[in-house]
Order: sequence, then C-alpha cells, then structure tokens
Amino acid sequence: MSRRGLLTGGALAAGGTVVGAAAVATARSEPAGRPPERTPVAGVGEAVEPFHGVRQAGIVDEPQAHAAFVAFTLRPGTDRAGLGRLLRLLSDDAARLTQGRPALADTEPELGLLPARLTVTFGFGPGLYAAADLDDRRPPSVVDLPAFRIDRLQPRWSGGDLLVQICADDPITVAHAQRVLVKDSRPFAIVRWVQQGFRRAAGAEPGRTQRNLFGQLDGTANPKPGAPVETAVWVTDGPDWLRDSTTLVVRRISMNLETWDLLGRTDRELAVGRRLGSGAPLTGTREHDEPDFAALGPDGLTVIPDFSHLTRAHVTDDRFRILRRPYNYDGVPAADGTADSGLIFAAYQADIATQFLPIQRRLAERDLLNEWTTPIGSAVFAVPPGCPEGGWVGQQLLD
Amino acid sequence: MSRRGLLTGGALAAGGTVVGAAAVATARSEPAGRPPERTPVAGVGEAVEPFHGVRQAGIVDEPQAHAAFVAFTLRPGTDRAGLGRLLRLLSDDAARLTQGRPALADTEPELGLLPARLTVTFGFGPGLYAAADLDDRRPPSVVDLPAFRIDRLQPRWSGGDLLVQICADDPITVAHAQRVLVKDSRPFAIVRWVQQGFRRAAGAEPGRTQRNLFGQLDGTANPKPGAPVETAVWVTDGPDWLRDSTTLVVRRISMNLETWDLLGRTDRELAVGRRLGSGAPLTGTREHDEPDFAALGPDGLTVIPDFSHLTRAHVTDDRFRILRRPYNYDGVPAADGTADSGLIFAAYQADIATQFLPIQRRLAERDLLNEWTTPIGSAVFAVPPGCPEGGWVGQQLLD
Repeated sequence: MSRRGLLTGGALAAGGTVVGAAAVATARSEPAGRPPERTPVAGVGEAVEPFHGVRQAGIVDEPQAHAAFVAFTLRPGTDRAGLGRLLRLLSDDAARLTQGRPALADTEPELGLLPARLTVTFGFGPGLYAAADLDDRRPPSVVDLPAFRIDRLQPRWSGGDLLVQICADDPITVAHAQRVLVKDSRPFAIVRWVQQGFRRAAGAEPGRTQRNLFGQLDGTANPKPGAPVETAVWVTDGPDWLRDSTTLVVRRISMNLETWDLLGRTDRELAVGRRLGSGAPLTGTREHDEPDFAALGPDGLTVIPDFSHLTRAHVTDDRFRILRRPYNYDGVPAADGTADSGLIFAAYQADIATQFLPIQRRLAERDLLNEWTTPIGSAVFAVPPGCPEGGWVGQQLLD
Repeated sequence: MSRRGLLTGGALAAGGTVVGAAAVATARSEPAGRPPERTPVAGVGEAVEPFHGVRQAGIVDEPQAHAAFVAFTLRPGTDRAGLGRLLRLLSDDAARLTQGRPALADTEPELGLLPARLTVTFGFGPGLYAAADLDDRRPPSVVDLPAFRIDRLQPRWSGGDLLVQICADDPITVAHAQRVLVKDSRPFAIVRWVQQGFRRAAGAEPGRTQRNLFGQLDGTANPKPGAPVETAVWVTDGPDWLRDSTTLVVRRISMNLETWDLLGRTDRELAVGRRLGSGAPLTGTREHDEPDFAALGPDGLTVIPDFSHLTRAHVTDDRFRILRRPYNYDGVPAADGTADSGLIFAAYQADIATQFLPIQRRLAERDLLNEWTTPIGSAVFAVPPGCPEGGWVGQQLLD
C-alpha cells in the first residue's frame, strides 16, 4: 500500500487521499513492475481517510454516504485497565480497516479490502468516566442533556458509555467494520443501540449541502472550513486528554412525514425560514445569503417569522456554532403506509454547554418545526483526541 | 431533460444512459446556451435507466447499490378496475421519478431530481390475479413455493399481492421513491412487508461479482449477457400479458455469522466449493473456471465435496439457470452482539417450476451451507411486460 496516486473527483473534493485501484492490485497480488495506469481506477472504493493523527477522523471531513452509530454499555467490571485493553483492540481494528486492510483475525478478510473513506470515531459517555474512576477528567457538559418539553425520548435510542461512529461511502464496508468492532467489544461491553443512516451516495451531488427527508437543506449554517471550524469544534488547550478533543451530541429526531406532507409549500418555507428549492433565507436568493431578520413584508410582519427554525437556530459568532454531521434514517413503514423516517442528528462542538445547549433551548422553546419533528433519542459523548501510529484512542486519558 | 450526454465510468459500464449534471442544470433553471462542459459532471446522481420499454427495467441491468422491496396486500374491494387505477398511478410515478422528474403532486419535489439509475419494477403475486378475477391468466408456477425442510418462514417477510422493487445507486432516491409509491398505494393496498438492502456503492468495485456478508462471491453462476440471459429470464411467446414477462422469487435468508465465524477457512471453502478469495472452484484458479466435479484429491474424495453449495446449485444448461440479483441486509445486532445479517435473495427466471424449484430442492435436500443459513421469508411474483410511453405496467393483463 505504499504507492499512492491522487485522483480527481469526489474523493479529492472530500479531502481524502486515494489509493488507485491499480496500485492496490499491484501491492496485493500482482507481479511488481506492472504499470498502475493499465488498470482503470475507481475512486469510491479505494479512497482512504487517515486514521492516525492529532485529532480523530470522521468529524470535520466531508461526511460519507453511510453511517452506523453504535453505542455500548460497559459490562460490570470493565474498569480503567479493561477500557485500555478494549480501546487498544478497537483502535487497532480501526487503524487497519480504515486503510483497506483486514482486522487482525478478521473472519471475513475479503470484506476489509475496500475502505471507501471509512472512518471510525470513538466517543466517551459519562458512564465511561465513572467506570474508569476518572469523573474528574470528564468535561463538565458531557452529561445527559436536560429534559426538553418537546422530548419523547426512548431508552432504546438514548445514552451509552462508549460510542463508535462508523462512516464510509460503501454500505458493505460499514457493515463489516460494525461486525468486527462489535465482536471485539463483546468481552467488555454490550450493544446498547445502533442507528444506521445515509446521505447522498458518493459522487451523486458533490459539494452540495445535503437534504433531509423533508426535502430541506440541512447543514447550511455549518461553520466554514478553516478558522471557523477550528474555533467551533476543537478544544485547543488543557491537559493532553482534552486538547484536540471535541464533544458529540447524537439525537434521533423522528420526522412526521404524514403531517408535513399535508402542509403547503409556503407554510413549509415559513416554518423553516428558507426557500425549499434553493435553501435561501426568505429575504435572500442564494443558500448562503445572510438572513435579514428585520425585513418586513407588506403585511408589516417580519419576512422571516420570529419562530421559524432559521431564526431560532441562528448563530453569528463562530465560537457558538455547532458542526452538524447528520444522517437520514428510513425504517419500514407501518401497514397503513405511515413512514418511520427521520434524522440522526449528530453535532460536534468544543463545548456542549455554550454551543449546543443555547441553540437547543431556543428551538425547544419555540420553533415552528417542532410541530413536525420529535426527539426520540439523545446521547452525549466526549470525543477524545486522536492517536499517533502505535498509539490508541483514549490513551491520554486511560493509560 | 432533452439533452443527454454519455459519460465514461460506472454508469456507462452499468448500461445506463447518463444525463450530465450540466445538461440537467441547464434544462431546469439556467439560461439556455450555457455550454454544459463548464459544470463538472458527476455520473452517479444523474445516471438514468429507461422506464418505458417492451420489458421492465431493474432485472437484467447491472444491480444498483440500494434496494427496497415493498410488498403490498390489496385492500378488500380492489378489483380489476381498481388495480388498473393503482397501476396507472404507480407507473406514472415510476416513469417520472426514474427520469429525474418529481412525481405528480410530489410533496418533496427536490428529492425527485436525482434518479441515480432508479428503476421501479412491478411484480404480481397470486392474490392479485384472484382479486382481478383473472386466475386463468396467472402463470401456473406463480404460487407459494412448496415448504422446504430448511424453511423457518415468518409471515412478516412472506407473501404479497403486489411487489414494487425499487433500486437506485442513491439511498435518498430509494427512500423518496418508496415514500411516493407507498403513499399513492394507500387507497388500494396496505404495506405487507418492506425489505431494504444494499450492495457495493456505485463505482466502488465496478465489474466485479459482489460479495455477501459471509464474504462469498454471490452471482458467479449468473447467465451471461446476450443469449444466455434471454433464454433464462424472459418468456418469449404466449399472449401479450405473458410475452416479455418473467418471474421473481424473493427469499429472506438469515445468515448466522456467529457460527460461520467459528468455521475455519478450509471448512468454509469446502462448504461453498469455491475459494473465498478468488471465487474459483476448488478445482480451478479463476472465478469463472468450470468446476471439475469428478476430480479426486489425494484422499480419494472429490476435491469439490458432493454436498457443497457449488455442486448442489450447479446448472449447465442456460434454460435452467436463474438470474440472481440479491441484496445484503444488516439489521441491528442484539445486545450480546449477535448479528441480524443476511441476504435478500432475489432471482429472476422465465419459469419458477423448471428453473428455480429444481435448484432449490437440491439445495434444501443437502447443501452444506444450510448449516449457517435459514430462509425466513418467501414470496413469488409474476413480473409482467413493460409498457410504452403513455401506457402502464399491467395494462396487457388488466385493461
């Protein structure tokens, strides 16, 4: 896997490095010296995201098409030392699979050869700090969120001591990585919940903001790459188990397509505060136009309703933004056709208390969209720094 | 949508036509005359499979990455005339969505713009013929399969009066099409079951036989394009409601990864009769080598065990082959990590009685793989001919 070539297309746009199919074939099974350019190259399967680094992958990189969020409950007796063994093992699995190599003792090694931009991101819930007897190192805002009036939380989608976020542009790659990581966790933890989700396929709509199943653009207000993301997402000082960490909020949001579909287009746009087609604020023409909350319509009311989602969620200071990295889910409809659709809302921010919570409080209080959406799951995790080659995620905290 | 351009890459290999992103943008919202080549083109989202034709799509074309198999039970009172109304409606939805146009009165029209090789294929279960009072036109082998010793069928994955097979290379496209088709079916039918599945992402592994979640290549023995597929899949004579039709068997096969993963590589290869890596028969070196069932090993036994899957499933005459078009499923694992994984086995053949059934009988009787696989769902459908522009699927039968 030493020969690498950069390709044009989705993988490049997504910031990943790409190993040409030819190079892979050469490295794996073909006689040396065969010129790589003789084999056609496909970018989606071979594209690689680095695993080792100061920060974990799967956060600020372009979201992959498929995700499985796997939350574990630690078994009684999994203490600090046990957590160390578990995270050494899972980090080793992730280091291999993300680079297109089977895990150690991989029972389906052929399924481990196509990384498809696989990332594996680890998050630590409040219970992990308790189990390790390290409550004093838990970031204070990594606790169950306060209850919101709009919540209808179900235990089967909530909480968790350890989260593994598995993302890739290929669904078989996600399934295989999930299988390997769940198997290797068995002695230490049980599966608490798994949420599987999807976005547009790799290459289907490159460079555009994604739509959710309401048809809304979702993620327009994300902090921009560079300084804004730096500021919003990463903890930049503190002890080594905090520096280059972040936090993750995962909420399962059920979206009531039945009632949403009864709503006219104008009413939907008023609820969102944006045009459905372009995603532009109702006072603008393009997706990224700044909304003008003071603009009045001919009826004397603000053009963007005060209780619109845009108004209530709006943040201007990058320090208070959150990085949304959501996935859609679409379960099996009921016999009468009622959809089981929604959003796996996943947001990264340096601090939940000063970034996610104020926005969530404003939304829970008054957001027209609440009429059609219901939070049915909720979990929070500290996302520790990354690890260098030979290290493991969580080492700074647990070793 | 009148300007079309052919692109290189996965979509072409897959046999679909491709509408350049630039052409789409031009046709939809931009001033005429802008040269299409100024916009970068992505093939996955804009690739189109034809809907209208003598035969239905979604059968012999390269399988897309994602599928939803939606089976309906007709409501009491949905008779021949009602079925005509339903199929006119669903055919119109399919004709639009497959070409990247929103359905009539589409409540999420923005989700209807990326076809991603969407196909919508209709199948008629035994109950549909009964409801239409047309039992005399039902192909005789379109009845519930006989019970097999290995079956553990669950009603929630079995049967169905009407099937809609929705396939696309993008999961949002599949979700939206499923939503539209389920909504429009409501007055006529209830949802009986939905099975959602996946294969490799578009462009991840072009031109290769797919692997299932056991890591096996799946589909090596499919009839080759051209005369073999013609012979195996299509009914070539008879009245107009039969000519250019086919039949579909959908079986949900639970795969016991827990016990499979305890098995050594050699034992797996003996059970399958093929090498796991290359897919070659144990007597050969390449995937498509002819197996030599008579070859003996040093122990005096056949190299390919008599009860291997390869031996039991082997067919040499194209008239008796089946066209497998399976999808993987991967549900949520149990708390102890036990996987809920398997295969949505979908096979097309001209006649179930002479093609699928003899193979299935041999497999049910003695196939080493039965140890690790369990059929938990089963359904059969006649797949009527396609329709010309202005027509609808089922018209020859029902009009």
